Amino acid sequence: MDLSKVFSPRSVVVVGVSTTNPFHPANIIFNKNYYGSDCDVYAVNPKGGELERRRIYRTLDEVPGPVDMAVVAVKADRVPQVARECAAVGVGALVVISGGFAEMGEEGRALQDELVGVCRENSMTLVGPNCFGVYSPPVVDTFFLPPERTVKPRKGDVAVASQSGAFLVDQVMTCFHEVGIGISVAVSMGNKAMVDEEVLLEHFAGRGDTGCICFYIEGMDEGVRRFIQSARQISDRIPIVAYIGGKSERGKAAAHSHTAALAGDHDMVAGALKQSGILEATTEAEVASFCKILSFYHHRPLRQCSIAIISSSGGHGVIASDLATAAELQVPEFDRERREALRALLEPGVRDIASLYNPVDLTGSAADQDFERSLDYLLSQDDIEAALVLTLPYTPMMTSFVGTRLGQVVKKYDKPVVAYVPNLAKYGMVLEGFELNGIPVVHSIEEGVQMLKALRLLGLYAGGGIPGCRG
Amino acid sequence: MDLSKVFSPRSVVVVGVSTTNPFHPANIIFNKNYYGSDCDVYAVNPKGGELERRRIYRTLDEVPGPVDMAVVAVKADRVPQVARECAAVGVGALVVISGGFAEMGEEGRALQDELVGVCRENSMTLVGPNCFGVYSPPVVDTFFLPPERTVKPRKGDVAVASQSGAFLVDQVMTCFHEVGIGISVAVSMGNKAMVDEEVLLEHFAGRGDTGCICFYIEGMDEGVRRFIQSARQISDRIPIVAYIGGKSERGKAAAHSHTAALAGDHDMVAGALKQSGILEATTEAEVASFCKILSFYHHRPLRQCSIAIISSSGGHGVIASDLATAAELQVPEFDRERREALRALLEPGVRDIASLYNPVDLTGSAADQDFERSLDYLLSQDDIEAALVLTLPYTPMMTSFVGTRLGQVVKKYDKPVVAYVPNLAKYGMVLEGFELNGIPVVHSIEEGVQMLKALRLLGLYAGGGIPGCRG
Repeated sequence: MDLSKVFSPRSVVVVGVSTTNPFHPANIIFNKNYYGSDCDVYAVNPKGGELERRRIYRTLDEVPGPVDMAVVAVKADRVPQVARECAAVGVGALVVISGGFAEMGEEGRALQDELVGVCRENSMTLVGPNCFGVYSPPVVDTFFLPPERTVKPRKGDVAVASQSGAFLVDQVMTCFHEVGIGISVAVSMGNKAMVDEEVLLEHFAGRGDTGCICFYIEGMDEGVRRFIQSARQISDRIPIVAYIGGKSERGKAAAHSHTAALAGDHDMVAGALKQSGILEATTEAEVASFCKILSFYHHRPLRQCSIAIISSSGGHGVIASDLATAAELQVPEFDRERREALRALLEPGVRDIASLYNPVDLTGSAADQDFERSLDYLLSQDDIEAALVLTLPYTPMMTSFVGTRLGQVVKKYDKPVVAYVPNLAKYGMVLEGFELNGIPVVHSIEEGVQMLKALRLLGLYAGGGIPGCRG
Repeated sequence: MDLSKVFSPRSVVVVGVSTTNPFHPANIIFNKNYYGSDCDVYAVNPKGGELERRRIYRTLDEVPGPVDMAVVAVKADRVPQVARECAAVGVGALVVISGGFAEMGEEGRALQDELVGVCRENSMTLVGPNCFGVYSPPVVDTFFLPPERTVKPRKGDVAVASQSGAFLVDQVMTCFHEVGIGISVAVSMGNKAMVDEEVLLEHFAGRGDTGCICFYIEGMDEGVRRFIQSARQISDRIPIVAYIGGKSERGKAAAHSHTAALAGDHDMVAGALKQSGILEATTEAEVASFCKILSFYHHRPLRQCSIAIISSSGGHGVIASDLATAAELQVPEFDRERREALRALLEPGVRDIASLYNPVDLTGSAADQDFERSLDYLLSQDDIEAALVLTLPYTPMMTSFVGTRLGQVVKKYDKPVVAYVPNLAKYGMVLEGFELNGIPVVHSIEEGVQMLKALRLLGLYAGGGIPGCRG
């Protein structure tokens, strides 16, 4: 299936713009692409007329030049006919926003089958129906939400597909923006009558710009089954993260009325994911944590899962130890020799009061160099595969330079390190110091542990061909 | 034990200010109280001299007028002697910041016993040692962190005590500030040689300004045991939330070297908490979610745990259903009659496409009035005890007035409602619309479910004397 016209169309028609409602999905799509995207964009409505002084074409025939993609937002019962008209003028891809298909029962399913028939006969690729469509910056963006009400994550290397448009926009695009994860392309699959999980997985894996793949899936069906099978070949090279909606009975019922998804038994689905090397995120927060560490500078799998925890607070070390244990990470107790070696590296005021068993508690008196030397020493140890550094920038001796210093250490050893920095705007300089130097930042200890858990799962289930480091 | 001089001192001496290091804890405490608190504050150092043109007294004798509280930040081995000098001038309370006591082994424990002896003999109340001390706005604040590096939550009705100072400042003060929870007083107990969990619980319960009590506890010891016993009488009137650090073997070991805490078996501790009506938060995020809903306008316990979920997105409804099920909340499927009644209330464009089984998916076309009428109808139903409303302010028909409208509905039925609003600064008006009208806002579906879980636990374990509503 050729997806180039889906992700890289040179020209797009938007069928179904309203002449009266500026909030109509088609109008929002027309406007945001007219002003913000790299493709040519045309509006179509049988009534004709003008939309903010730009011509509305009555038919697809009237549109000048070839059309690669049509975005369709008309009532469901008119969609098959629009698809035929698109085929007649050589459109290569349809994104059908409209709902009212298989998710609405038997009658809708018949309509959807008719639509798929038209697309198949005419070799048109169909995204949807009942979806938000495609976000492929800077070329095209069919997510029909007013731009001033939304945010866009930076361009990056995570490719995302979701059976729920709102999950994609809200839990992924918004959250990824917030935590600094970059997206290459994103697709809302909706009823996935043609373009489904497997089709997108193959496409993502074949693109040159994919560093991590993320799926939101509702229920188990043929597409998901094929997706899981295909993943086996891909997860060795590119990490794949999946979040499953519809785990509970009520969730399954909701998923069915949402996108006509047929529920599977969650344990069975989870087992199949593992066998194919797909990392299952069990919460929304894990989706972001997993994607961030996997798309960041490091995605070296953990093998022994032995980590060092370095903090300036005893309580944070206790909580981190509990969470790491729950995530099946090892926090080995350091023996006297190692503690003495560490102690000798610390500043005099810290040396006497630090607790160095692992978690290492450098205390609130710790300065940047105490963190730097501790991390350097611990990463030099063969048995320590990764570190979680818990910084509290309200301690007076820590400066905004700490991230840069620790970043140099990380580059030396090429082992993954995650830094916790509390979520305050005024710690922005500390945060950037870390992230610009290769250390991803989290705002809760839990998320830091989630990141290292992702690397543990990678070592367990995927990873034969995953390079140690891409940074 | 009289804690009035701990929380409401009229005058405070800070013993141990440095004449050379402006970041010394004693200097930070002196400065922040001198400029920011309602008590008189004096600096003491045997060397005498001046600190930014303010006199440093050589001895406690020299300090003019009576002294209610002394904050002590000198080396551990000098602390008992300082305590004696404090007793001699009639100091009523000591906050000992210094570490180097029981947490450091046998020698430190002997020193701590000596200190306790001096305090007991002289009827001085001792907070600490090895702690951040007391935050009692606007009177006194001994948390020795540069004010420009920290934030303070608003004044409110949650009283907090923690065995870890950093947990208190970072996970509680910072996070509570971020999510808008107000604090009445906060105490870092450190080694809790005298003022322990039970002492503080009794004090909190006896204050007039306590709406919710929150504890961070490491391990099980005599103080914790007495705390749990006392809680049985209090949890019927005031909700008590506890987070237990040191659940894992490594966490226990870390807790021991942190505050000399002796670990207990976590299942045993958890069982004891339940029996005393204490709500155990199992993650840091739950600490904030529990305290926010319990200190907010509503803390009506759930009895049947039957909730309605109203969203503008199918995917969000699916995820919320899964999470609610995992939290043992019921999401009853609505029968045809209820669905038809709901449908008749919706705007024409929404009526045809909404899915009304529960979760109710009003779709991205929903306007404020669709949410308002759905919530009004559902809260009027006897079997629905609470609602989770998932709003996505990027849908074009939703306005910033939605919270005000829904707030009026909540006031009518007096049932708890929680609203999800994505975490974007530009949704600030939407957020405030909810919170100013009695509906707490969360930034993840998970946190919304956690809030309703808190009310379920309240119904299960506490609650006989908890009023239905304090708003």
